[in-house]
Order: sequence, then structure tokens, then C-alpha cells
Amino acid sequence: MTMRRVKFGVEGLDAMLLGGLLERSICALVGTYGTGKTTFGLQFAYEGLRQGEKVIYISLEEREELLRATMAQKGWDTEAFSDRFYLLKLDPTDFNLAISSIKSELPALIKSTGASRVIIDPISLFEGLFEDASDRRREMFRLIEVMRDEDCTLALTSETDVANPDGSKYGLVEYLADTVILLRYIRSPGLTEVHLALEVVKMRRSAHSREIKPFEILQDQIMVYSEASLF
Amino acid sequence: MTMRRVKFGVEGLDAMLLGGLLERSICALVGTYGTGKTTFGLQFAYEGLRQGEKVIYISLEEREELLRATMAQKGWDTEAFSDRFYLLKLDPTDFNLAISSIKSELPALIKSTGASRVIIDPISLFEGLFEDASDRRREMFRLIEVMRDEDCTLALTSETDVANPDGSKYGLVEYLADTVILLRYIRSPGLTEVHLALEVVKMRRSAHSREIKPFEILQDQIMVYSEASLF
Amino acid sequence: MTMRRVKFGVEGLDAMLLGGLLERSICALVGTYGTGKTTFGLQFAYEGLRQGEKVIYISLEEREELLRATMAQKGWDTEAFSDRFYLLKLDPTDFNLAISSIKSELPALIKSTGASRVIIDPISLFEGLFEDASDRRREMFRLIEVMRDEDCTLALTSETDVANPDGSKYGLVEYLADTVILLRYIRSPGLTEVHLALEVVKMRRSAHSREIKPFEILQDQIMVYSEASLF
Amino acid sequence: MTMRRVKFGVEGLDAMLLGGLLERSICALVGTYGTGKTTFGLQFAYEGLRQGEKVIYISLEEREELLRATMAQKGWDTEAFSDRFYLLKLDPTDFNLAISSIKSELPALIKSTGASRVIIDPISLFEGLFEDASDRRREMFRLIEVMRDEDCTLALTSETDVANPDGSKYGLVEYLADTVILLRYIRSPGLTEVHLALEVVKMRRSAHSREIKPFEILQDQIMVYSEASLF
Amino acid sequence: MTMRRVKFGVEGLDAMLLGGLLERSICALVGTYGTGKTTFGLQFAYEGLRQGEKVIYISLEEREELLRATMAQKGWDTEAFSDRFYLLKLDPTDFNLAISSIKSELPALIKSTGASRVIIDPISLFEGLFEDASDRRREMFRLIEVMRDEDCTLALTSETDVANPDGSKYGLVEYLADTVILLRYIRSPGLTEVHLALEVVKMRRSAHSREIKPFEILQDQIMVYSEASLF
Amino acid sequence: MTMRRVKFGVEGLDAMLLGGLLERSICALVGTYGTGKTTFGLQFAYEGLRQGEKVIYISLEEREELLRATMAQKGWDTEAFSDRFYLLKLDPTDFNLAISSIKSELPALIKSTGASRVIIDPISLFEGLFEDASDRRREMFRLIEVMRDEDCTLALTSETDVANPDGSKYGLVEYLADTVILLRYIRSPGLTEVHLALEVVKMRRSAHSREIKPFEILQDQIMVYSEASLF
Repeated sequence: MTMRRVKFGVEGLDAMLLGGLLERSICALVGTYGTGKTTFGLQFAYEGLRQGEKVIYISLEEREELLRATMAQKGWDTEAFSDRFYLLKLDPTDFNLAISSIKSELPALIKSTGASRVIIDPISLFEGLFEDASDRRREMFRLIEVMRDEDCTLALTSETDVANPDGSKYGLVEYLADTVILLRYIRSPGLTEVHLALEVVKMRRSAHSREIKPFEILQDQIMVYSEASLF
Repeated sequence: MTMRRVKFGVEGLDAMLLGGLLERSICALVGTYGTGKTTFGLQFAYEGLRQGEKVIYISLEEREELLRATMAQKGWDTEAFSDRFYLLKLDPTDFNLAISSIKSELPALIKSTGASRVIIDPISLFEGLFEDASDRRREMFRLIEVMRDEDCTLALTSETDVANPDGSKYGLVEYLADTVILLRYIRSPGLTEVHLALEVVKMRRSAHSREIKPFEILQDQIMVYSEASLF
Repeated sequence: MTMRRVKFGVEGLDAMLLGGLLERSICALVGTYGTGKTTFGLQFAYEGLRQGEKVIYISLEEREELLRATMAQKGWDTEAFSDRFYLLKLDPTDFNLAISSIKSELPALIKSTGASRVIIDPISLFEGLFEDASDRRREMFRLIEVMRDEDCTLALTSETDVANPDGSKYGLVEYLADTVILLRYIRSPGLTEVHLALEVVKMRRSAHSREIKPFEILQDQIMVYSEASLF
Repeated sequence: MTMRRVKFGVEGLDAMLLGGLLERSICALVGTYGTGKTTFGLQFAYEGLRQGEKVIYISLEEREELLRATMAQKGWDTEAFSDRFYLLKLDPTDFNLAISSIKSELPALIKSTGASRVIIDPISLFEGLFEDASDRRREMFRLIEVMRDEDCTLALTSETDVANPDGSKYGLVEYLADTVILLRYIRSPGLTEVHLALEVVKMRRSAHSREIKPFEILQDQIMVYSEASLF
Repeated sequence: MTMRRVKFGVEGLDAMLLGGLLERSICALVGTYGTGKTTFGLQFAYEGLRQGEKVIYISLEEREELLRATMAQKGWDTEAFSDRFYLLKLDPTDFNLAISSIKSELPALIKSTGASRVIIDPISLFEGLFEDASDRRREMFRLIEVMRDEDCTLALTSETDVANPDGSKYGLVEYLADTVILLRYIRSPGLTEVHLALEVVKMRRSAHSREIKPFEILQDQIMVYSEASLF
Repeated sequence: MTMRRVKFGVEGLDAMLLGGLLERSICALVGTYGTGKTTFGLQFAYEGLRQGEKVIYISLEEREELLRATMAQKGWDTEAFSDRFYLLKLDPTDFNLAISSIKSELPALIKSTGASRVIIDPISLFEGLFEDASDRRREMFRLIEVMRDEDCTLALTSETDVANPDGSKYGLVEYLADTVILLRYIRSPGLTEVHLALEVVKMRRSAHSREIKPFEILQDQIMVYSEASLF
């Protein structure tokens, strides 16, 4: 049985995922600031647009115009896809609005638009709205449950936990997601060099690569050096 | 005196366990996300089915259809065993329902079905339902007590503790279980390589192996390389 | 002045203790799960039985029948000693019962039976009954005071503290006990090998060995390799 | 599409930023005490003045006259720019005043003066005014939102988190800012040498350098040794 | 100006102290369990007795008869000094009694007996009686103040802080005391060897040794190897 | 523009400070117990007296007579300066008195005496009087503000933070002070040697040395070995 693969459009990464994410699966992109989480999110969105898909991008961090500027910088013409690209900024300080937007309006929007890719960037800001840990866990489980009924592939970005660089800020999404991609800095001992590296730590229903591969964020693309070892 | 051994059906692992788990014992599979806890749980279930046993699998994390898809992916025909395979999804956000299901309905189900293997995946989500640490401990002790009276072998999966990669999330199951299998990532210094390794840390009433052995999760099976050292 | 020594019946360990525990002293066996705390406790009990002594074993973790099975596994005939072996299971979730059992009934039982060895396995479950740290400390001091008046040698097992692998779970028994035996895993760098090792960290009134020695839990005995260094 | 670059006037640093900060972006300068955060802030201000710009410098830590003395020490004639340099000291212990100054008066001041560079030194003292973590987060998001509407480039300095030398004291600004410059001490093993080093960890909309470069704070200038490796 | 030195009667240690503790000073002996704190306390007491001094020993941990047994073990005839040796056991669980004993009765006892050496073993159990950190600090400051008016030299033993092996359990005595002697285990990497070592970390009004020296607790004496380096 | 330098009278240290502290600046001396904080404080005081200045020394830890004894030990004749040396002991357990002494009486004393050097040893005991972290911060900011208006140079000693040996106990003075001198132990790996070392981590308005230099506290002076490297 083969399932359709949903590509990032980054050759080395798609290879590590054995062709891409599984259709209708949930992917977490976990990394500290500066590792390129938003870039991966936008790349995933853009690849969908390029493939003729409809895409919803929910940003809790950056303004719509800045995200568009970022994409324009990469030479991506988002204007051309304006009828299929739903780029929304959510105010991460408005508890009620954010929650109702994500919990009730997002499923409706997915259905009405027929979007096949949805990105929430970062999910950790949504999680942070809940001050009580058990509320947060319960709401995250429910969100994931709701999203599993939708006919789309979901990518969630998350900050890392200060105390655990291999885990997400609240330690939930890596367990809830089907696929977890960890983005990190490798600072050599003595701090002489810095590299970015990614690792597919988990991928349900797929015998994924377990390598750590260096990557770079270039002006117009993400390069994953699948042939290279880190050092 | 020899006791009957309950096999995982993974050659290298069963050898480390001197033939398998002891009948009617309790086994904890502890590991961080992506180490294959669910895969081991499903493998343990499937081996039981293969041996003609009745099996109950309680999932607090993944949907029934996704677990079946995972098994199908491995080439396992669960349909053939549908009269002996009880695959249940429990909502980990519904405190009262989850607790009554596990505490009262599970023993009844074991008795009525005559299941000889039971898997709870992950037990850490059940533990997490209790916000108070002493409630959690008390309920876990009682659950284990109840399960010890049942005529079945029990496998529990658990996330690790962020602060202690050798222990379970709440630090209880490794003490309560008869057998503890630790699953972990070995990331080489400098992060050039990643391996999965397992270790039987504890096995009551059995002079088990105390080696750390590499393993891989292949498309259709788990391979434990009992002849190999890690590096 | 020489004092009578109370042996474990494990040659290498008794040698490290200069012949055994001092009579009427209190010994703490501290180790993480899987290091053999219960095995040492049972060995200490069995050696007493072998020497014709009366022995009380209070388990807060394992059922009586399972402990007997463990002993039978080792080829130890506990039936033969049934009139001198008091093996009790205490429910670690019943605060009032556990406390009254340990605080008032245990001293009475020691007196009425004339037991010369008492084992509480693990004392950390008893300590865990007190949610308030100062209650716990006070009750532990009082228990130790009461036990010092009894004419027996006392062995207490304890889990380690997650944050301090050289200390007990609540950081009390290593200070209260006369003798502390630390059991631990030595996992080599890179996790290629695992060994068990023990160390007599403290022994009041005795110029004990301060070596770390490897040990193994074999089918029928504990072997401490006193001649060997760890690596 | 090229954007105008806002220079620090420190050759090596501007090169790492591919010419300077992006106009109207937000930059965080994160470092522990003694790494030169204020020196970088003043340098950024002075370069603006040299370029004929209007500059607002809000200090929550040092007095105006001491900051002027520091600048004079460097041979910078701030008198010459007195009509374009708004150097304000805010009392970091007066909650209401500090908040109203930053939240309402600062935007007004930017508009009325037409300042194109604004520095808040350190933002961590402002963040520290909020005792409740969710209040702090919400107010910081709102401040950033407000500042994004202003026609100026903003530099924020911040202490580091004691537990995480790669993050800011409250773990917020590195996520909110477009650019993060990390300043740190490199103490060699054995503590024989100390160096200062900087790293552009994050820069939105720009393929910035990911090198760690040594720097020194000399009497009259900051020297970033872009050609040198650290050791 | 030379001050009279109060010796421990341990050659190597007295040499590190340039002859001994300063008269009427306060010394803290800080170490984890098993490092010989009580042995040092008893040695300090016994040396006083040998010198014809009067000595008060307050134990919060061990019973009087056990301490006497320990001393007898070392071949020390405490009977011979019974008119000059005040060995008191204080119940560390009785808050009011312990505090009044130490705060009011001890000064009176010192005066009435004319004791020139006082040992409190361990002071950390006294500190632990205060649940509130500021109460504890205040009471410790006051105790030290009161003791400074007495005409005796004071030795306090203390457990270490789990999180800081170089500091005392509550982080107070090392700052309050004039002299701090740190006792510790040195476990070699790989845990092949264990040594005891001591270090005079602080000694007010004296240019003390700053070496770390190995020591052993032999049957009848403490040996500090002042000529040896550790490895 | 050159400012007058206020010397410690320790050649190597004054050289690292490019001649001494800046006049009217605030210096923090941060170190753990036994690193010589009080010795540096007294040296700073004595150098002032030698230069004919008036000096206020506020001790929250040691008694006046003991501090005088310490100085006498060093061969310093404080009697000769009795009309210019104000040595005050403050009770660190009397909240109201300590606060009013420092906040209102100290400024008055500085003015009435015309003292040009003030030492508070240690400031961490003053900070510790505030149980609430935000009270502490506010009061420390205010104290520093008040002291900046006085015509004197201020030296504050502080214990280190247990969790951060590079920071002060409460993490405030290193940010508030103009100059921070870190005193520390360097214990070689394996604990064979101990050295004291100092480092000028921060010095506002001065291109100070960034070296780590060994020092010793000799009978009559502090020696900083500016020519030597540590190992």
C-alpha cells in the first residue's frame, strides 16, 4: 500500500521523508529561534501553491505583509496565487479570539476553501495562551482530533523547550504529530563554527531516514545536503 | 522452575529477555518520541494474534484506523484476526471516562474476552490525567494491583521524563513493572549519527541481558542487532 | 573491641563490609530501578534464615507470592523456613494502615517473633506517603529511633533521587543509616556497555572498603567481583 | 528587491548583516553583563546621528549624564547633535510611569521627532516590570505591534537567561525580533583566556552570516574581526 | 601578632590550618554522607580532652551510646574524661526543645562548665527545623552572634547541598563560619576509584593552605596525606 | 578626557582596571565564600586611608573587632586612621533597622564625614532582607540611584548565585554596577590543584583588561600575578 506524499519541495528533505509527508498527516517543525521554522512553513505553503493546491497559512507571529515580503524576497510570486493562498495573521494576545479562530473557524475555512495544506506558525504561541497545563493539553488533543477529520495535511511550527533542546516548548506536539522534524544549531566546541542541521526524529507509518543532515537557508531556497555528513 | 515466556516476536529482543516476558508479568516500554514505542506495542499485539491469542490494545494517542493502517503497512493482516483483536481508542482528555474505562471496564473486558495480552499505549497519558502527584501514584498502584489479578501479560508504553532520559515521565512505571525496556536515541558527539538502541534495564525473576543493543524499525519488522555493539 | 557481624552471604560484599553489617545497625541499600535492591534485600533475608535466624520482610512493592517465586527461582526453599520467615505485603496507598503497621505493629512483631533481621523494601514508598517534607523527616527520625531500640539489624532499600544519583529519593536515609550501600549502573560513554557496581559509601564504627566493585545478579546468586576493577 | 540597510557603523558587523539591519526592522542585542550591550546600543545611535538621522535612546539602566560621558569618552561629540538626539532615562522601578512612557509616549515622540532609530536599553528591565508571565508576554507582543507601525528601526538590548545563555532573560525578544545578535564571553577550558564573540543568530528576510566572530571594545570603537576565527 | 591555635590533633590538617583553628573562631565541616564529618567532630572533641580542655558535643543525629562506642572503637578512653566531656543528644524532631536547648541552654552550659570546645553535629539538622528560609537565616545569624560572645572554639558539621557539592545544605554556614573545611569524595571518571579529600576553602585572619589533600579514616586515626597529590 | 582613578593598592588589579576604579563609580566584587571578598573590601578601604581619604565600611557579616583584628594581622595600623575610618556593623537580621541605616543614614553619614570611599560587605545580605524579588529589585535600584548622587566611590561585595558561578546571588548588582570584578576558585579537573583567579568582567567607560589572572591572599597583601597565565 503506498500513500500519496505531500512534498516540501526541498529535495534533500523530501528524500529523508521518503517522498514527503503522508497525505492528511500532521507534521511538527521544532526548533529554536533562527533555525528557519517560518522559512520551512512558507516553503511548504509555496510548494503547495506551485502544485496547484489551496493553502491556508495562519501566522501568530509575523504580519501578513512581512510574510509576503519574505516570500517576495525569495522570488516567489504570491500575487499569482492570490485566489488560492489564505494568509491570516492571528493576534496571539487575544485569548478568546485566537481560540475560536483556531478551533471553530479554521475547520470551516478548510472546508469552504478546500485547502489541502494548512500551516500554523507557531503553534507554541497558541499553546501559550493556556496558562494551565492540563487545559493546554486537553485543548491541544482536541485541536488535533478536529484537524484529523479535515482533508488536509497540517504543519505546525514550535519553539523548543529551554530545558530540552530536543523537545517542543510545551512537550506536546512531538507526541501528537505523526512526523517531527527537528531543526537545530550545531555550535562546534569552542564556538568556532555554527551549522544548521535537521533530523526527522519521528514519522509514523513510514520507515524514514534517521540521519542528521546539514542545511542552509539561501536567498531563494533551502538546501539540505543529504550527501554530506555534518563534520 | 521454568515459566512460560511471552514473546515479542522480535528475535534479538526475545533473546535479551531469555525467551520473552514472563507470563502474567508487567512490562514497561519507556522512550522519548520517535523511538518506536507504539511499534513495539503493536508488534507485541501482533505476535500474540499470530500465536492464536486474544489481544486488547488500548490507545490513548492514535486513532483506531491509523493504528490499523500502520499494521497494514507492515503487511500484517489484522482483518484475519478481527474476532480476537480488541483495538480501543480512549479519549485522553475525558478524565472520568478514561479512568472508569481503565479501572473497571478493562478488567471486565479481559475476563469476558479471555485476552492474554493487553497493551496500554501510552500509560503516561493516563497518568497525566491526575494533576495531583499523590493521586497519580495511588491510582497507578491500584491499577497495577488490579491488573496483577488478571490472567494476562501487560505491556505499558511511556514517554520519558524530560529531566531524566533513563526514567519514565512520572517516575512510577519503571518501579511498578516487572520488566523495563528502555528505548533511546544515541546521538554521537558532534551529532553526526543517530542510532536507536534498547536495553532491558530490569527484569524481575530472570537473569536478563544487561547489554545495550542497536535496533532499527524497518518497513515490515523491528530488527535488534544482538550480535552488534553500538559503535 | 570486636562486634558481631551480620552477613549478607555475598562473599565480596561481606568482605567490603569487613565481615558484614554491625549487629543492630541500620543499613540503606540505595539504587535506581533494575539495580537489584530487592534481590539484595531477599539475599539478606535468606542468609539470616540460613543462619537459623528469624526474619521479617516488609514489602511495599511486590506481592508476597511473587517474592516467594523470586526466591524459589534462586533455588531457595523458603517453605523450609516458614516458621521463621515473616513476609508481609503492605499497601503503599493506604496512608493510615501503612503508617500504623510500620510505626506500632512492626516493633511489636519484632519483639513477639524475636526476629534478628528486618527488611523494609522500599522505605522510599513509606517516605512517599508523607506529602509534607517536614512531616516526612520527623516521622523517619522517629521510626529510626524506635528501630534502634529493637534487638535486630535493619535493612532499608530506597530509590535514588532523580536529581542526585548518589543520594536516596528523599535524601534522608543515607544520613540516618549507619551503613549505606550504593547500587548503580555504569553506562560507558557512547553507551556501548552497561555494568552494575556497588560501593559502601558510609559505615559508622568501621573502617570499611571505599572501593567501587562490579557485581552481577546471576540466576542463583549475587556475585561481587572484589578482585576486579571496573574497567 | 533590495531594502535600505541601517548600519551599525561597525564594519565587520554590518558585513555579517549583509549591509546592516533592514529598515523598520526590530533588532535584539542579547548578552550577559559586560558583553557590551550598551556600547552597541550607543554605537547604533551614534551612527544614526552621524548619518544625519534623528535618534531616540531610552535607557532604563544608566543616567543620561553617564551615557553622555561614555560617548564623550569615545570621542563622540554628542553636543553637535543635540537637536537630533533624544536621550531619555526611565525609572525602571516606577511601573505605571515606565509603562505609559513606553507604550503611549514613545510612539508619540517618534512621530513628533521623526526619529528613524530608537534604542531601548535594556528591554529586559521593562519586561521585568511585569510579575505575571502572561501579562509580560501580552504587553511585549503589543509593544512590538505598536512599534511595527512606526517609521523607524528599533534596537532592544536584553540580559540573557541565567539558565540559557543563548536566550534572552524572558525568552521573548529573540522570537519577536527580526534580527538577533548574540554577544557572549568565550572562556577557554581551564579559564586561561577570555574573548568576546558575536553571532547573528537570526535575521528575517535576509540570508545573513552564520559565523561566530570575535570582537573587542576598544577605547574609541568596536572591532569585529570578520576575517579571524575564534581560536 | 600570633593567636593561639586550637588543634584537631590530625597532623596534616593542623598543618593546612597553619597550626590549627584560631581560638574562639567558628569552623564549618561540610561534606556529604560518608565523608567523615562526625569522625572529624569527635576527633576535635577528643583532642580537646587530651589537652585537658572541657568539651561539649551536641549530637542531633547519633545516640550518645553509639558515639561513645565509636570513640571506644578508636581506642579512645572517654571514661577517663567523663568529668570534662559533655556529650548530649538532642531530638531533631522537637522544634521547641531543640531551639531552646541550642539558643539558651547551650550558652549557659558553656559558661557553667567552662568548655573551650563545642561541637554541633550536624548543624544542618538544626537549620532544617526552620521551614521558612528567612526564619532560618535570622536564627542562624543570631546563634552565631551569641556563640561569638562565648569563650570557646566552635565546630559545626553540615551536609552538603544536593545541587552544589561545594556548599552546605542551606548555604549559610560557609558564609558565617571563619573557617570552612570541605570534605568530599573524588570518584574518578569511569568510577574506577574513590578517594576522600579535604580542602580548607576559607580561613579568616590566616593565610591558610589552598591545597586539596587526600585523607583516609583508619581504624584509630584520620590520616591527611599532606605530602601527596591526589592523582 | 581622563578621569581620576581610585586605586585598590593592589598593583596587578589596578593595572587591569587601567589605573583603578573611576571616581564616583560603583564596583561589585562577586565571589563565593573563601575567595577573599572581604579582604578586597578591606584593602580598598585601607588604600583610601593610606591616601588620606575618609572611608566608611559597612559590614553586615563580621564584627567590628574581628575586622580590625584582620587588618591588624596584615600589619595595618587602623588606630592611626581612627578619625577617618568609619567601621560599622549592621545587624543583617533586623529588617527595618538595616534598611533605614542603608537607605537614609548612610547618605547622611557620607555627607557629614566627607567619605570618598564606601564599602558594603556583603550587599547580598542586604538584598536577602527582601523576600519578594520585585521589592528587592526596586530597593536595589533606588539605593544605587541614591548612591550615585553621593561624592564617593562605592564597592559592594556579593556572594555568587549557586546556579550561576558567574553571577551574583540575586543577579542584580552585576547589572547595576559600573565595574564587576569576579573572584573565583579554579579547581583543576581531578581536583588536584586549587587556584584563586580574578577577572574584570565589566567596566563602563573604560577599555579594561579582559584577562583572567591568578591571585593569592598572602599574610600582608593581595598579589595579582598579571604577568602569569593560569596554567
